[in-house]
Amino acid sequence: MGSLDTNPMAFSALPNDKAAFEPLNPEDVRAYLHKAVDFISDYYTNVESMPVLPNVKPGYLQDELSASPTSEAMLVTLVAARDAALRRSGSVGVADLPRLTVYAADQTHSTFFKACRLAGFDPANIRSIPTGSETDYGLDPTKLLEIMQADTDAGLVPTYVCATVGTTSSNAVDPVGAVADVAALFNVWVHVDAAYAGSACICPEFRHHLDGVERVDSISMSPHKWLLTCLDCTCLYVRDAHRLSDSLETNPEYLKNDATDSGEVTDLKDMQVGVGRRFRGLKLWMVMRTYGTAKLQEHIRSDVAMAKMFEDFVRADDRFEVVVPRNFALVCFRIKATGAMTEEDADEANRVLMENLNKTGKAYLAHTVVGDRFVLRFAVGSSLQEERHVRSAWDLIKKTTSSIMD
Amino acid sequence: MGSLDTNPMAFSALPNDKAAFEPLNPEDVRAYLHKAVDFISDYYTNVESMPVLPNVKPGYLQDELSASPTSEAMLVTLVAARDAALRRSGSVGVADLPRLTVYAADQTHSTFFKACRLAGFDPANIRSIPTGSETDYGLDPTKLLEIMQADTDAGLVPTYVCATVGTTSSNAVDPVGAVADVAALFNVWVHVDAAYAGSACICPEFRHHLDGVERVDSISMSPHKWLLTCLDCTCLYVRDAHRLSDSLETNPEYLKNDATDSGEVTDLKDMQVGVGRRFRGLKLWMVMRTYGTAKLQEHIRSDVAMAKMFEDFVRADDRFEVVVPRNFALVCFRIKATGAMTEEDADEANRVLMENLNKTGKAYLAHTVVGDRFVLRFAVGSSLQEERHVRSAWDLIKKTTSSIMD
Repeated sequence: MGSLDTNPMAFSALPNDKAAFEPLNPEDVRAYLHKAVDFISDYYTNVESMPVLPNVKPGYLQDELSASPTSEAMLVTLVAARDAALRRSGSVGVADLPRLTVYAADQTHSTFFKACRLAGFDPANIRSIPTGSETDYGLDPTKLLEIMQADTDAGLVPTYVCATVGTTSSNAVDPVGAVADVAALFNVWVHVDAAYAGSACICPEFRHHLDGVERVDSISMSPHKWLLTCLDCTCLYVRDAHRLSDSLETNPEYLKNDATDSGEVTDLKDMQVGVGRRFRGLKLWMVMRTYGTAKLQEHIRSDVAMAKMFEDFVRADDRFEVVVPRNFALVCFRIKATGAMTEEDADEANRVLMENLNKTGKAYLAHTVVGDRFVLRFAVGSSLQEERHVRSAWDLIKKTTSSIMD
Repeated sequence: MGSLDTNPMAFSALPNDKAAFEPLNPEDVRAYLHKAVDFISDYYTNVESMPVLPNVKPGYLQDELSASPTSEAMLVTLVAARDAALRRSGSVGVADLPRLTVYAADQTHSTFFKACRLAGFDPANIRSIPTGSETDYGLDPTKLLEIMQADTDAGLVPTYVCATVGTTSSNAVDPVGAVADVAALFNVWVHVDAAYAGSACICPEFRHHLDGVERVDSISMSPHKWLLTCLDCTCLYVRDAHRLSDSLETNPEYLKNDATDSGEVTDLKDMQVGVGRRFRGLKLWMVMRTYGTAKLQEHIRSDVAMAKMFEDFVRADDRFEVVVPRNFALVCFRIKATGAMTEEDADEANRVLMENLNKTGKAYLAHTVVGDRFVLRFAVGSSLQEERHVRSAWDLIKKTTSSIMD
């Protein structure tokens, strides 16, 4: 079997290192994909000449990444934390499960609350902690401490807290270190969901958002969100992988093999829901080897710069307001209530602006509700997005706003 | 945007309808893939000329398939059954969860027992029902009835039973109709796991294995196992989809949209663990449109015929025995204990045979343990497998056996 060029230099050989970074240049894509097709077809043509088993030692491709959807990362860590809490509390089977409690800010992705229900936590014990503009919609550790203490006093067992770095709704950041400090008082598992903003943390200037991460139990991030990787690919890092396999290990006869039995390889089936898995780590590895750190950082910084530019446009136009300070490449803004306009009128104006804009087929805005207000979300992140697209989207927003405000 | 030819006739235009069916003919693969690459590259080249939103009504591509791994199909149906049982029992939150019980034959895939633990069922309430050669390792409905009755008498709440059509270990078939009849007495959710053998049921002659399926609550099958579809793709049919969404629905502001609110489309996020999903239904649709029913049936029948041929080889050689009657394209066989050889000696001989054979790099056998005996599994199912491969594998098995028996 032939193999793709494994010389590291070959991977970073993008056509012109000096030109602006175009991660999805169509002609490069075409050339690479045709090459891949021939590789696959040659493989099938010559498959009979190859041994049934590869001539490599199990584990030679060291996979440091466990990659599956964010929802699964949350579910498996919730289950591990649940079972550890049951063991600590001396529960007979799941008898104490109705006493376990879990925590997250109200801005946390809905998939967290669903994963809690899947894992059997009592819906009444899933705490959604209110946030407000005073913390820029991040989790308030003082509130977290009060609620965990009250639960403990009531005979409940705090088990798991999810802190988000870059919420879906508004890119809010929960204070990871402070959350970890509170959780440590109650022996609670801390999971950090950095699905989106984790990609930004490849740049040193964004890494402070993860301060304290060395004290958490697990963290997940999804390169398919913002790191040029196809859906789906989520990385899950767990401080102690045995805490996952304690809950998720199975050992049927037909899967027994020397490499697993001897501990020579880590059997990822024991850290996930299913048994089979696609080799999602490969596509992330290809992205990293193709572009390299510098190009990937350029990609993130370029998106953030475009979002910053859009934010400046919004601030310079007094019909609008930026509702939540921008942390990454999402701008949460709205037509503001001015003059005789009530906040409710402004909500309606923003809803009409969004609908009219989306009808043009030239741009697409999604919305959220933050602090009871209808808010528009302008997200930069498409691989093909350039500054001119942001400028023309802003022109369209201004024009559409004028047409509905007059 | 251009589109692939949507004329149904164009899809079945395999090069030569009279020739033997070669689903992965390398030169066809090469041609199709190069065409697909140009389609993708042209799309990116022309992406700016296209509207941001497609000009189609939501739901125009009616997706009747919910497709995710088998483990997820089990998990979401277990959770739906769990929550329904809790509601029926008048449980306050999950207070009654420690009373719920689940059932499956001991031959059921390990992923079922893991999914039960994920969903919070008490490990002591997960019943693995022993099977034996008297039912060809299928679930005995009389035993199921006895155990469910005993549990009910003990104040427990039977909740879910998983029946398998074609177990991983030996392709055993649980009697679907009889299991459904027993389950109905206790208002228990019946799930059928036909991950592998469900594909065979596209042929009328295998469909009797599903008799009674009209009385179950859910069934899953995985076209990636045996229907020429890439990993991963699992189809889950549920009698009443609302029973899934009752447990799995979420409704965050940033996902609200008119098409879902009006009921114009079914939001599949409410029937699965995560929110995002790959369009797995598309690849299955492409397989069905490319090959058509007749070619897919030919593919199944050809694999079964090859397995039958191998089974005949085994039966004709008195050094071997077929351990479990063959139902589909898996033959479970072993060197039998003859003369002074004990069953333990035979176990060891089979282990050595497997190891020596796998070392050749020319064939690969996996094993299982059935009725306490070490058994070899010869599976036909690779897309590229032909009769000559089966013949040469058998020759190799005979030769290797002779070398270790002498």
